[in-house]
Amino acid sequence: MKTDILIIGGSAAGLVAAMTAKSNFPGKDVTIIRKEEKVMIPCGIPYIFGTLGATDKNILPDAGLEKLGVNILIDEVISVDTDAKTCKTKAGKEISYEKLIFGTGSLPFVPASIIGQDLKNVFTVPKNKVYLDAVLEKMSEFKKIVVVGAGFIGVEFSDEFNKKDIDVTLVEVLPKIMGTAFDPEFSDFAEEDLKARGVKVLTSTMVKEIKGDDKVSSVLLGDGTVLEADAVILSIGYKPNTKLAKDSGLELNEAGFIKVDRYLRTAVKDVYAAGDCAEKHDFATGKISKIMLASTACAEARVAALNLYKLSTTNIFRGTIGIYSTSIGDMSYAVAGLTEGVARSEEFDYVTGTFAGIDRHPGSLTDTSKQIVKLIVQRCSGVILGGSVYGGKSGGELINVIGFAIQGRMTLNDLLVAQIGTQPMLTASPAAYPLIKAAEVCAKQMKN
Amino acid sequence: MKTDILIIGGSAAGLVAAMTAKSNFPGKDVTIIRKEEKVMIPCGIPYIFGTLGATDKNILPDAGLEKLGVNILIDEVISVDTDAKTCKTKAGKEISYEKLIFGTGSLPFVPASIIGQDLKNVFTVPKNKVYLDAVLEKMSEFKKIVVVGAGFIGVEFSDEFNKKDIDVTLVEVLPKIMGTAFDPEFSDFAEEDLKARGVKVLTSTMVKEIKGDDKVSSVLLGDGTVLEADAVILSIGYKPNTKLAKDSGLELNEAGFIKVDRYLRTAVKDVYAAGDCAEKHDFATGKISKIMLASTACAEARVAALNLYKLSTTNIFRGTIGIYSTSIGDMSYAVAGLTEGVARSEEFDYVTGTFAGIDRHPGSLTDTSKQIVKLIVQRCSGVILGGSVYGGKSGGELINVIGFAIQGRMTLNDLLVAQIGTQPMLTASPAAYPLIKAAEVCAKQMKN
Repeated sequence: MKTDILIIGGSAAGLVAAMTAKSNFPGKDVTIIRKEEKVMIPCGIPYIFGTLGATDKNILPDAGLEKLGVNILIDEVISVDTDAKTCKTKAGKEISYEKLIFGTGSLPFVPASIIGQDLKNVFTVPKNKVYLDAVLEKMSEFKKIVVVGAGFIGVEFSDEFNKKDIDVTLVEVLPKIMGTAFDPEFSDFAEEDLKARGVKVLTSTMVKEIKGDDKVSSVLLGDGTVLEADAVILSIGYKPNTKLAKDSGLELNEAGFIKVDRYLRTAVKDVYAAGDCAEKHDFATGKISKIMLASTACAEARVAALNLYKLSTTNIFRGTIGIYSTSIGDMSYAVAGLTEGVARSEEFDYVTGTFAGIDRHPGSLTDTSKQIVKLIVQRCSGVILGGSVYGGKSGGELINVIGFAIQGRMTLNDLLVAQIGTQPMLTASPAAYPLIKAAEVCAKQMKN
Repeated sequence: MKTDILIIGGSAAGLVAAMTAKSNFPGKDVTIIRKEEKVMIPCGIPYIFGTLGATDKNILPDAGLEKLGVNILIDEVISVDTDAKTCKTKAGKEISYEKLIFGTGSLPFVPASIIGQDLKNVFTVPKNKVYLDAVLEKMSEFKKIVVVGAGFIGVEFSDEFNKKDIDVTLVEVLPKIMGTAFDPEFSDFAEEDLKARGVKVLTSTMVKEIKGDDKVSSVLLGDGTVLEADAVILSIGYKPNTKLAKDSGLELNEAGFIKVDRYLRTAVKDVYAAGDCAEKHDFATGKISKIMLASTACAEARVAALNLYKLSTTNIFRGTIGIYSTSIGDMSYAVAGLTEGVARSEEFDYVTGTFAGIDRHPGSLTDTSKQIVKLIVQRCSGVILGGSVYGGKSGGELINVIGFAIQGRMTLNDLLVAQIGTQPMLTASPAAYPLIKAAEVCAKQMKN
């Protein structure tokens, strides 16, 4: 068979690439080829185990693709001939293409050093409905779960299991939970909130061995402690799924991602990559970044698809900002751009400013939340390098305000004189809006 | 007595001007002179009558001023000699200053054509605790209230009275509620939501006369209908409070605001004005704007104070964006920059794009809200002129994302490739984030 634009992978990057391609080049035939009959919404996966209760409630819908007229093929590409511009599939098809986009995503990563990872009831978190259904089916058997790895996924899983009255211990080898994303004080807010809800948290703690005969019965920690466990979730990280790309002759970077330029083009003509499998550079340092986020994947996919037949210097990917957010109960934790930790280790000359206020006003309202904003600002220019938010649920959009300040190359002066919208039921007060007040603190630091 | 920086008025502009001045010029003596013992948080006033229940719960706190060492003088300036740089007060004081900032705010405006406005139980909405306390004290007597004027204040009052099981009719002479702020479809969302909560809404309806002997008993409408009423709230609008400024020789513009430059300086040396009393120009058209918002006032006050002793071209006020938001129940209604109505009447060459999604994901979550984003984009340049949001409570910050896109001079292409942070519990999905999808709709329109 023949298609014009072939997209390998049907998760966030594949979906958005297909929709953007078809919208912008409606005369082209666009095909998604994917292994999964039904695709999981990646960031919704932890919620399957508590709030949602079923994988069927976490399906990335095909309706948008179907409405646009994108072909969906459930099959697997097993080889690509980039000279002949054809793919061979597991089902025996040969598909020729004009443009090819790799959106093959990522796979759970578990270090070989963890002994016992093959025991029954030891799970990873692949974006795979069949696998997740099998885990979910066993959930009622589990009274005690150990979650290994306190990134966003590990934290969200822990909170969801806890909602189901399961005894949860979250184990993290680093000193702080979500410690690669957040500055320590924001990790502490999250740890405190998680503990207050009943999740046990062990940081600076190594997992030495997962023990059990046939199935897991306990987890042996580095200090000799033994945690009883009916199940273990290994949420340690992900690695780019790039074996097919490598076998097809595409170049990978040292971290295993498919090398791409600012248009998401590989070095091979008419072959693009986007999402978790594609190379990323940090917006501020230019260094290779290992960030994997559905939102980043979607932005990359838009850029790739917009540049398929006509390159545009205004539609480039300017480097990964890395805007993360998560939620525990009614609180949100979010970061955009550089943390102070990264700014320090990369030797930026920066100042920081933090302001703690509340997310609605007046303060006499009974259901306000704390809202703490921290900004990282480049001293020589006032350019906003990054920001963090701890607050109520509106923090999920407030971090995007900061994200736009970064992407709009706004400076501290721009923030000091910025106009914001405020309303008692919706936001902090205009006189004490934490983002602007944090900018004022930074401005004072600039004078020192 | 003598002070360095004298600020007349203690509401949003006065407070922020004083704090910014004292923070940035700590060696200067800063004094606020205000009439009110206790200052009302302006945007909190409607909530006194429902959610808060008392004016004491809506006090703009003095703690920040006191902590910084700003002097607070409860008195009233009755005349200013800008040559001698002295003010005379009602209490008989003479105060000399180096720099003077007018933050005298605004007063309720009621057209003389409304007959019966002097009857008992006919109220306006001044930012005056004593007045509001008197209204609140009578509240228990009122079973039926007519609110005249469906701007933000009128809508918020109506919803709060309705919470107290008062029979409320909101009467608006224009065809749509909040019709000067919103495009019609967004006004319709608000009207629908307000009606669903039990508020009666009459648009395109004139009030001919407020009737009663000593106190109000009914309201006669233009079409002859008579509405029974125990009380009437006139929330028709505000006019700048600039009599003192005029008497002091400051120039007013044709709308009655104190003329200022981009540093918020008047033409008289060392005299500034900020907030509702100060002249505003629209950011896009440059035309004189009558927008009065506490958030705008705060931004202007910061600019005025930052430029008191050292002018900076990076700390200028670039024109009023006008970022409004309000809330009815769990929904928010917000706008930043130009509406389509204004873009059309001002003859901008523009495109619009609207996208309707939901504010969390996946859609199977039980407590999602609609989230509708509309963007107005300049055709020739792609510059974002404005945006509107209808959604759940996070809309209050989402409008600030759009506000920053406008203030950061971001273009449609910047939005198409923008990186956003998304999370199931906090935001829309990254593949269907209404702001980005609305940008995609605009991009399609640009090709037509």
